[in-house]
Amino acid sequence: MSDAITASEFRVRYAESDQMGVVHHRHYLVWCELARTDHMRRLGVSYRDMEASGLKLPVVEAHLRYRQPARFDDCIRVRCWVREVASRKVSFGYAVERRDDGTLLATAQTSLIAVDSNHAPTSIPSDIRRRLVTAPDPVRL
Amino acid sequence: MSDAITASEFRVRYAESDQMGVVHHRHYLVWCELARTDHMRRLGVSYRDMEASGLKLPVVEAHLRYRQPARFDDCIRVRCWVREVASRKVSFGYAVERRDDGTLLATAQTSLIAVDSNHAPTSIPSDIRRRLVTAPDPVRL
Amino acid sequence: MSDAITASEFRVRYAESDQMGVVHHRHYLVWCELARTDHMRRLGVSYRDMEASGLKLPVVEAHLRYRQPARFDDCIRVRCWVREVASRKVSFGYAVERRDDGTLLATAQTSLIAVDSNHAPTSIPSDIRRRLVTAPDPVRL
Amino acid sequence: MSDAITASEFRVRYAESDQMGVVHHRHYLVWCELARTDHMRRLGVSYRDMEASGLKLPVVEAHLRYRQPARFDDCIRVRCWVREVASRKVSFGYAVERRDDGTLLATAQTSLIAVDSNHAPTSIPSDIRRRLVTAPDPVRL
Repeated sequence: MSDAITASEFRVRYAESDQMGVVHHRHYLVWCELARTDHMRRLGVSYRDMEASGLKLPVVEAHLRYRQPARFDDCIRVRCWVREVASRKVSFGYAVERRDDGTLLATAQTSLIAVDSNHAPTSIPSDIRRRLVTAPDPVRL
Repeated sequence: MSDAITASEFRVRYAESDQMGVVHHRHYLVWCELARTDHMRRLGVSYRDMEASGLKLPVVEAHLRYRQPARFDDCIRVRCWVREVASRKVSFGYAVERRDDGTLLATAQTSLIAVDSNHAPTSIPSDIRRRLVTAPDPVRL
Repeated sequence: MSDAITASEFRVRYAESDQMGVVHHRHYLVWCELARTDHMRRLGVSYRDMEASGLKLPVVEAHLRYRQPARFDDCIRVRCWVREVASRKVSFGYAVERRDDGTLLATAQTSLIAVDSNHAPTSIPSDIRRRLVTAPDPVRL
Repeated sequence: MSDAITASEFRVRYAESDQMGVVHHRHYLVWCELARTDHMRRLGVSYRDMEASGLKLPVVEAHLRYRQPARFDDCIRVRCWVREVASRKVSFGYAVERRDDGTLLATAQTSLIAVDSNHAPTSIPSDIRRRLVTAPDPVRL
């Protein structure tokens, strides 16, 4: 796996299940965010420091495809990569997999825009933008 | 508003905010689900009874566009309608608005498939399918 | 019901269920917060305005007893009241009930302290404190 | 650390923050559950297998003290131990700490009862009960 695609791993929490006996679909957005934060950290961008310096990246679009259910106690791997980066916007791709057998559980993409501390649109600083190396989608989203 | 598009209203909970000072983007999926459940109830389909009878409707795809942030204590209105219905799949559309000034905060669509109690694909029973009256999108999704 | 005890009503969301088929226990803290915010509003204290003016009330202690499970689609009523108020601390009590038959599902109490915008302890302003009228517990907590 | 007290580690998720800029208090119940599930697994009890065999352990009481706020991106360690075990009930204790400097952020205790697949009270099987070795509280709860 190249540095442009990294993976985060964790176990499904009981609280993430719903009465269908599977992970409720909203939690995949949390998992994607976790993977995105990890991915950016590995690219040298601390999301925490970035926010402290006044730059925020709210999600403006999300598209998820749920393929197979995840269940409580499953070990999950989320692969994350940058799909596109422009002056004010960055898009990420995600592949959510069951770690033990590699089954693809879900794919997702999210787009984020840069805003300042007043929630007004701004540009992604060039030193951050330079680190957000793109990768071709490793799976069909 | 025709019966084919109904609305649910509620106030944003403190717990739905994040450190950006706005509603975290995952909660819109919960709000859509709440509006979908209400909408189906008004169409004569109790989601609770439907699940008790062995039919479940997991979300297989979701697409959300976040336009303006929602904030703690805002009164929210989610309009919901059926976009398409087929033998095993149904799609819903959503417009999330701030009630007081009608600002469109987000739009979304989700697709759900019918599964039985073993999580195997099945058909939507005709009496339920007949009630799921479609409506043209009242806003661009 | 006196003004010193008010009630909030809502329906259980699907997303609040877990794979045990009942509401996951963390959500009762969210329900208590919702009821507390409503109760304070009725006493003339807007939590939103209070935070905007720099005063925050983080929870420092919570004690919950879960008596009967709540389930998806149940109509819930949470009664809320102020138990005690001091210069820097206020305690609330809660009775979570199923509305249709009045069954007591849970009781809870939470203590909150006043902090300023730097998260440093501060006093509850006298005009707010005066409004936080206490009530004796209507049920055993 | 003896086997009777084990620890789980993870990083605070962005989605766990609220507009106060700290972790919302409900998430500590999720963290305790995660630590409890890990602790039981290390004691030889798979929560997943236990539920599949028809035994469930709903939380009937929870008591939390929040001492210092946790923040997004903090590395958290939750130590967990069994406080008491009886034929139908087991109590756990928790110490939530910031890993990097050992600061105690919160302490908690939860009591769980054994129920069968119909949510009726039952006994904890002796082979499970035998594994639930108690430990004296390592901190004041």
